[in-house]
Amino acid sequence: MKSHVEREITELKEKILRMGALVEERISLAVKALVERDAKLAEKISSSDDEVNTMEMEIDEKCLSILALHQPEASDLRFIFATIKINKDLERMGDQAVNIAQRTKLVISAPPLKPLIDIPRMAALTRDMIHDVLDAFVRRDIELARMVCERDGQIDALNDQLFRELLTYMMEKKGKINQALQLILISRSLEKVGDHATNIAEDVIFAVVGKDIRHHADMRET
Amino acid sequence: MKSHVEREITELKEKILRMGALVEERISLAVKALVERDAKLAEKISSSDDEVNTMEMEIDEKCLSILALHQPEASDLRFIFATIKINKDLERMGDQAVNIAQRTKLVISAPPLKPLIDIPRMAALTRDMIHDVLDAFVRRDIELARMVCERDGQIDALNDQLFRELLTYMMEKKGKINQALQLILISRSLEKVGDHATNIAEDVIFAVVGKDIRHHADMRET
Repeated sequence: MKSHVEREITELKEKILRMGALVEERISLAVKALVERDAKLAEKISSSDDEVNTMEMEIDEKCLSILALHQPEASDLRFIFATIKINKDLERMGDQAVNIAQRTKLVISAPPLKPLIDIPRMAALTRDMIHDVLDAFVRRDIELARMVCERDGQIDALNDQLFRELLTYMMEKKGKINQALQLILISRSLEKVGDHATNIAEDVIFAVVGKDIRHHADMRET
Repeated sequence: MKSHVEREITELKEKILRMGALVEERISLAVKALVERDAKLAEKISSSDDEVNTMEMEIDEKCLSILALHQPEASDLRFIFATIKINKDLERMGDQAVNIAQRTKLVISAPPLKPLIDIPRMAALTRDMIHDVLDAFVRRDIELARMVCERDGQIDALNDQLFRELLTYMMEKKGKINQALQLILISRSLEKVGDHATNIAEDVIFAVVGKDIRHHADMRET
């Protein structure tokens, strides 16, 4: 039979998964609005992230109440500790969905600059990263978490490539400068989402093995 | 006589203040490198933020050990909870110092685009915000924390103004596009620092009054 604290932690996991799924969906929809030039969808995503914010507060309250009522120890304590930080990363990812949708409204108000290839690819990569890292979190799977960390480099590379490409566009077409700039900032938002997923992966590893792998690039290789 | 947990919390406050002072200094130095076109200083700040990262890990460990050994209650527990989140915001501010310094190296490799007025002003505002919000944290001063939240709008306004100005430069001078773009991104880094200071202010208010003011714009007015 499960202890009270185990049941609470199971509930907390479910809440984090729900929040992760919501954030993942909102980022996908923001990029869909950009690709399909859907102003209504962009408006919908940019106008409110109340649902994400409410979830963040609920998860914080839950963490605090578990700490206050059950004084968890060792791995349970590390799990709660990691959850407090993961919650914050998820909320920041949600902010990026809003940023992307806001910039999308500006981008699609003018004729298309170029076919969008790298941005949907980056969005697909971040979606997989979010999905896998939360899977790693609930299953305490450090191998999967490590793989998420490794994938972040692909997003960074796409971001750099797109930056250079859009900079060339800006130099060639003066009238397209603002649009290209907004695309650069959208690409950076997706790169940030990848960074948050990596942070979460590091927190998962800490929660499971009790070892802090942040800021030790050499340890990620192992 | 102070209890063991009170002594631990005092130590934690000192660590957070030291980390805040370091981050504040690194942001100031990154902007100084930009204004004074000091490539050596930009290189110094961009090459390593090991000190900030080490402090972040030490503070996390301290929080975890206080939770494990002393099972703090009520306001002490909220204080530790807030500290976990504040620590993360400070580390992210430190990342922005690195970003600013990296972009500075690109900006100063070409002749000056324009006199820098808004960026030093934004930097001064963020410096005051960091200083005041950590003062509010250690003194549990919610009025001061509220004032920090209110000041964030000034930074956002300067960021918007500079964005528009630099966009005009980009349209007028093709050869200056990349330089102007880097300045836009530096300005955005400072805006992010302001956002982190605001987050910290909200966490301070939560730690003191036990009420979550995040995501309730209406409550910030009171």
